This record gives sequence, C-alpha cells and structure tokens, in this order.
Amino acid sequence: MDFFEVVRSRRSVRKFTTQMVEPEKIERALDAALLAPNSSNMQPWEFYWIQSQDKKKQLVKACFGQNAASTAQELIFVVSRLDTWRRNRKLILDWVNGLSHPPKILRDYYQTLIPLAYFRDPFFIKDVIFYVATTIVGLFRPVPRSHLGKARHFEVATKTTALACENLMLALVAQGLACCPMEGFDEVRVKKILKLNRHCHVVMGIGIGYPAPNGLYGSQFRIPRDLVIKRV
Amino acid sequence: MDFFEVVRSRRSVRKFTTQMVEPEKIERALDAALLAPNSSNMQPWEFYWIQSQDKKKQLVKACFGQNAASTAQELIFVVSRLDTWRRNRKLILDWVNGLSHPPKILRDYYQTLIPLAYFRDPFFIKDVIFYVATTIVGLFRPVPRSHLGKARHFEVATKTTALACENLMLALVAQGLACCPMEGFDEVRVKKILKLNRHCHVVMGIGIGYPAPNGLYGSQFRIPRDLVIKRV
Repeated sequence: MDFFEVVRSRRSVRKFTTQMVEPEKIERALDAALLAPNSSNMQPWEFYWIQSQDKKKQLVKACFGQNAASTAQELIFVVSRLDTWRRNRKLILDWVNGLSHPPKILRDYYQTLIPLAYFRDPFFIKDVIFYVATTIVGLFRPVPRSHLGKARHFEVATKTTALACENLMLALVAQGLACCPMEGFDEVRVKKILKLNRHCHVVMGIGIGYPAPNGLYGSQFRIPRDLVIKRV
Repeated sequence: MDFFEVVRSRRSVRKFTTQMVEPEKIERALDAALLAPNSSNMQPWEFYWIQSQDKKKQLVKACFGQNAASTAQELIFVVSRLDTWRRNRKLILDWVNGLSHPPKILRDYYQTLIPLAYFRDPFFIKDVIFYVATTIVGLFRPVPRSHLGKARHFEVATKTTALACENLMLALVAQGLACCPMEGFDEVRVKKILKLNRHCHVVMGIGIGYPAPNGLYGSQFRIPRDLVIKRV
C-alpha cells in the first residue's frame, strides 16, 4: 500500500468486527515497530501482545470496558522502561566489538557516554550535579542538558517508544487492519496485570481488528495548519 | 512508495548532499505529520521550519555543529507545549458545535473532561487532589490516574508529538529524502533561539536533505526480537 495512502486512511477505529486477525500481520507490524529510530539506539521499549483470554478480560476492564478494547481481536500494550539500558548497552557493545572495524567513536559512546546519561541513583544526585555543572558551563557554550528527575528520563524513553508505536499502527493499516491507540486506562491496574515494575510506563494500549461499519465515530478535525507550522 | 519499503529504508542519515530540497516535499511531509493520532485530539505540537540563515547558523551551533544539522538543507524543530490546550479545545468545540448533529458525548468530553485533565495550577494542587482521590477510588474500581507534576504532563504531550514526528520522517523518506532525528542539542539555547517559553519542550530536531554517499554511519542493530516482544 502506498505510504501516503496509509497515513491518510489511518483513523482511530473504535469498534471492530469479529473477524479473526492473522497473527502474521501482527508479527509484521511488530517488525515495523522495531525499525523506528530511537534515542541513542537504546530501544527502551517492550510490546505486550495479549494472548491469554483471562488477561485480556482483565485489561478490557482496566480500559473501562471501552469498545476499542472490548471488541478488539488483538490487544497490544506498549511499554517504555528505564531498567533495560544496561542489558541493551551490553548487547550493542557486543555488536560493535564484533564488527570488522569497530569505530572508536561508537565504542566510546556506548562505553562512556551512555552510562553517564542513563545512570540514575535513587536520589538523583548525579542529575543534580550534572544539572549544576551544565548550567554553569552552558553560560559560555552549548552543552547537552541533564534530565532532572525520573519523569524527565521517562519523557525520553516514552518519546522514543511512541515513534515505534506509530510505525506499528501504520503497519497495521497498511495490511488492511484498523486500530485504536488508547491512553484511557487505569495504569496502575494495567501494570499489575502485566507484572510491570516502577521503572515502566505504559505508553499506550492498541486495540486491533478489522473495522466495523460503525467503527469510526466522526470526521477528522485538525487545528488550522498555520497555527502549528511556523516558518522562522 | 510502498509503506514497508519506506519503513525498511528509513535510516538516520547524518550527512546530506548540497542538493536543494523541494519545499513542496517538506510541506507534504508536514501534512502527513499533522494526521498522526494524538491524545484526545488536542494536538499539542508545533513545527518550526527554519528559513532564516542566521537562525540556522545559531541552531547548528546549538546542535554542537553535528553533521546531521550542519549539512542539512532543511531543518525542522518539533515542539510539544502545554499552553495551547485552551485554544485547541475552543477550536475543537467550535468544530463540534458546527456539526449537523453534534454528539453530546463529544461536547461533554471537551466541555468538561478536557479542562479537568489539562488544567494545571502553579502548585499542582489539582493534581494532588486528583491523585489522592483516584488512589482511594482506585482501590475499588479502575480509574484514570492523575498525572503528578509538570514533567508527567510533558510526557503525554511529547509522546503524542513523537507520533507526528514519525509520520514526518517516514513521509520524507517516501519522497526520496533522508533525515536524521536529533536529541543531541542544547535545549536551553534552542528554546531561546526559537523564542519558546517554559511551557514548551523541544521534542527533536530533524535534519533533512538528500543522502550523501557517506551519510550512513553503519549497519542497523536491533535488540533481539524475543527480548522486547512478550506474548502474555
């Protein structure tokens, strides 16, 4: 399917038919998700594809029973997490070191810079030190700014995970499926059902299926272009 | 261009040729960005397309002179903001009320629920009250959880804006262009150059151009699929 046709035809469909979704279409969409660009290639994402009927029932309840979840043939919850960076960094370093000519700059980046950026102590002492240091140095020259607090770290991980979510959703549409991203859920309950720890945020739930005739709730409204696109 | 071909061929290209980029390709990519799904359709995004050579020079400096910025023929900074919700809500309500049969549920949503979710007082008193209330009610039944603090509000706005960023980047690739998303910049300086207030976060800078032969710095590494895709 043509790319722009996919983008144009993607709408949040909130009711699905009872037609089964081919698992290989979900697999293909997940593969597309994993190809998204992301912060320092650290891939802080996880995709929970719900297979258990019992879990699905609980999750639909945690989504307040909304149609986009209850009529969904497949349900995926996408998660951003702050506690996989050590594992991912090691996997990346192993890959870098296995290259025929490992670029020094790449090795240094993951060896030294990534821990500096991703390490968090419980009291954010590192963040505060970096914040003060970069604020002072920043008076004189451009510096990367430190993220103060866990929520700011999550903003980066969630942002990057959202890029993958968009690939996933478009890839579903490209295969004739429909989907609805959901943020309307009880995050505490969803995390409990999926056994997620406090280093995880649920980025979104995605209800997936073939669109029901009454699945689209209205036309599409966009803020006038000139209000959001600025030429400077 | 076929959708999956676009996703597969998108890579972060960090050096561009001197070939001019057709402005209509950028416009088309921006249009694709605006069609992204987003939180409650509140569209908290802004796209700064840099036209002034002087501003471009300053921004390249704020990006530490990296090639992805300095060789870019076009440069877009994407911003998420917390202070446009009142305006956007009004525009949406005007649109809803102009429909031939305005759905009551939609009107109620933007009339009542959106202010409850988006209003922030300087001391986050509303957030705290909601947090306590939803934590207590949440013991008994699923509830939407309150976002505690400005950074959590930004996480939502930035997440939604990232969905638009992915549309934008893929739409560039679909038209034969290349791009590189950048988070490596001095956010304080970028905000100053773009005259952004404290209710704005710079989600990413995007360097755009035709790919230079040496624009790709290496092969693509992905964390093994089974570590990030969970069947539960």
